[in-house]
Amino acid sequence: MRTSVNREEPVKAFVLVHGGAHGAWAFGRLAPLLAQEGHHVVAQDLPGHGLGARFPRSYTTRPLNPQEFATEPSPLAHLTLRDYCDQVTGTVRRLAERMPHHQIVLLGHSMAGLVLNRVGETVPGLIGRLVYLSAWMIADGTSFSDYMDAPEYSTGLIPSILRADPGVTGALRMDFRSGDPDYRARVKETFAADVDDHDWEAVANLLTPDTPIGPLTEPVTVTPGRWGRIPRTYITCTRDRALPPAAQRRFVDEANKSSPGNPTDVRTLTTSHSPFASQPEELAEILLGL
Amino acid sequence: MRTSVNREEPVKAFVLVHGGAHGAWAFGRLAPLLAQEGHHVVAQDLPGHGLGARFPRSYTTRPLNPQEFATEPSPLAHLTLRDYCDQVTGTVRRLAERMPHHQIVLLGHSMAGLVLNRVGETVPGLIGRLVYLSAWMIADGTSFSDYMDAPEYSTGLIPSILRADPGVTGALRMDFRSGDPDYRARVKETFAADVDDHDWEAVANLLTPDTPIGPLTEPVTVTPGRWGRIPRTYITCTRDRALPPAAQRRFVDEANKSSPGNPTDVRTLTTSHSPFASQPEELAEILLGL
Repeated sequence: MRTSVNREEPVKAFVLVHGGAHGAWAFGRLAPLLAQEGHHVVAQDLPGHGLGARFPRSYTTRPLNPQEFATEPSPLAHLTLRDYCDQVTGTVRRLAERMPHHQIVLLGHSMAGLVLNRVGETVPGLIGRLVYLSAWMIADGTSFSDYMDAPEYSTGLIPSILRADPGVTGALRMDFRSGDPDYRARVKETFAADVDDHDWEAVANLLTPDTPIGPLTEPVTVTPGRWGRIPRTYITCTRDRALPPAAQRRFVDEANKSSPGNPTDVRTLTTSHSPFASQPEELAEILLGL
Repeated sequence: MRTSVNREEPVKAFVLVHGGAHGAWAFGRLAPLLAQEGHHVVAQDLPGHGLGARFPRSYTTRPLNPQEFATEPSPLAHLTLRDYCDQVTGTVRRLAERMPHHQIVLLGHSMAGLVLNRVGETVPGLIGRLVYLSAWMIADGTSFSDYMDAPEYSTGLIPSILRADPGVTGALRMDFRSGDPDYRARVKETFAADVDDHDWEAVANLLTPDTPIGPLTEPVTVTPGRWGRIPRTYITCTRDRALPPAAQRRFVDEANKSSPGNPTDVRTLTTSHSPFASQPEELAEILLGL
């Protein structure tokens, strides 16, 4: 990539937003690849994630009591989409104020598509580009949950690895410390089939069990005159089993219909849902070329 | 902190190097506080840490077999100090090339003091300041291990939480998933007495069990004409039980003796070994004021 960056170009400020169950750590390989090219990079744990993660008591007690784990209320059940978005909007505003000559590129992975929608709608004038990395770029008036029942999601594996009813616990709950080899294999298949087995063990160590359901059930508003005017890129992950390619295509089709003058710039990675782990260089190359 | 930064000052490039058992995630709170002030920040997992962590098989099998955990060779036992330093030196060189007008501030936490020593000795002309955050700023010709037997380390708690003989496994090995409340309390006391209990649970989830012993037993060379000429700051953590304040003072005294014309700039935080979790704002304020 050394030759791919024109030093005459103005540097960008990349704001990287991780997905559910992840943390800023997800960008541990990607961020340095962007930063060492001279770009500004901010990756922050969303509330309830990373250093701010919270755990059901039953998760840290082994052997796991499956019944307890299936019913214990999530300590994160109070979180809303606004909690996520206020943080990211604050970061964007602050960067725009401090570095008015940097173009802000806001990237969201997976569930963070919701965050990009709402933050984009809130401060469209401050964002140079939205980048959806196999992310839920949902249509106006819909929620994350609406798509889980859509035909385009029928091959998605997330529902098959939930260990609790979200309606009971208030979270999508998974057991990343499970000792059951079949379950472990299915979790890897869902998120990271192409990730090296040892790398995956490191990722699974960092993942956290509860993603609060509040942000996932809230309908999001995006309008042609605000969100719809921001240049946007969708990075499709063609081997994704957490968010099937068919659903990714639907997001792009719906966005293109809702903002016909601003078609989505679609890029492709032949990866699972975890390109930040399996192909960070290829991902960086796309971002550096935007 | 909004008023503490003079916008006329040139921006800095902070390279943040985490300690043993940690990853770039340790800077999840600190990094955004620096970045949003307009500074460039790079935090990268060292080899064998974070997304590159590797685990003894016995660690992920619960209930834990203590005998197996005490003797299973570490999958990281092959790592050397050079592996760490080559990565960091490469980052420093690249930043210096890409951003010649930025002052590079190289910060190391805990064990990463060794990395700062060696990288500083290798590329002294590229580094504007070394910042040791309760870090092993060891003297010329000594190793990390040499200090574990020093009287100034006598109150240090790390040896009391090791679960294996490093000579047998090739690693400092701890059990961050232990279900034993006494052991868990001792681990928190060692690293994070002042960290909120819930935050600590998040930190403990991210920590990894093996820190390879190779880098810790290797003597480090620092000379007055190279390392000794780089401006350096030592941030003392006064409630640290992983690296006792007496040992921190010894590091400063020894450094000052070896480079009399370049005394250490000492700053103080009233924290445990984990100010990045307990007092990230105070830590950022020190760094922004350098």
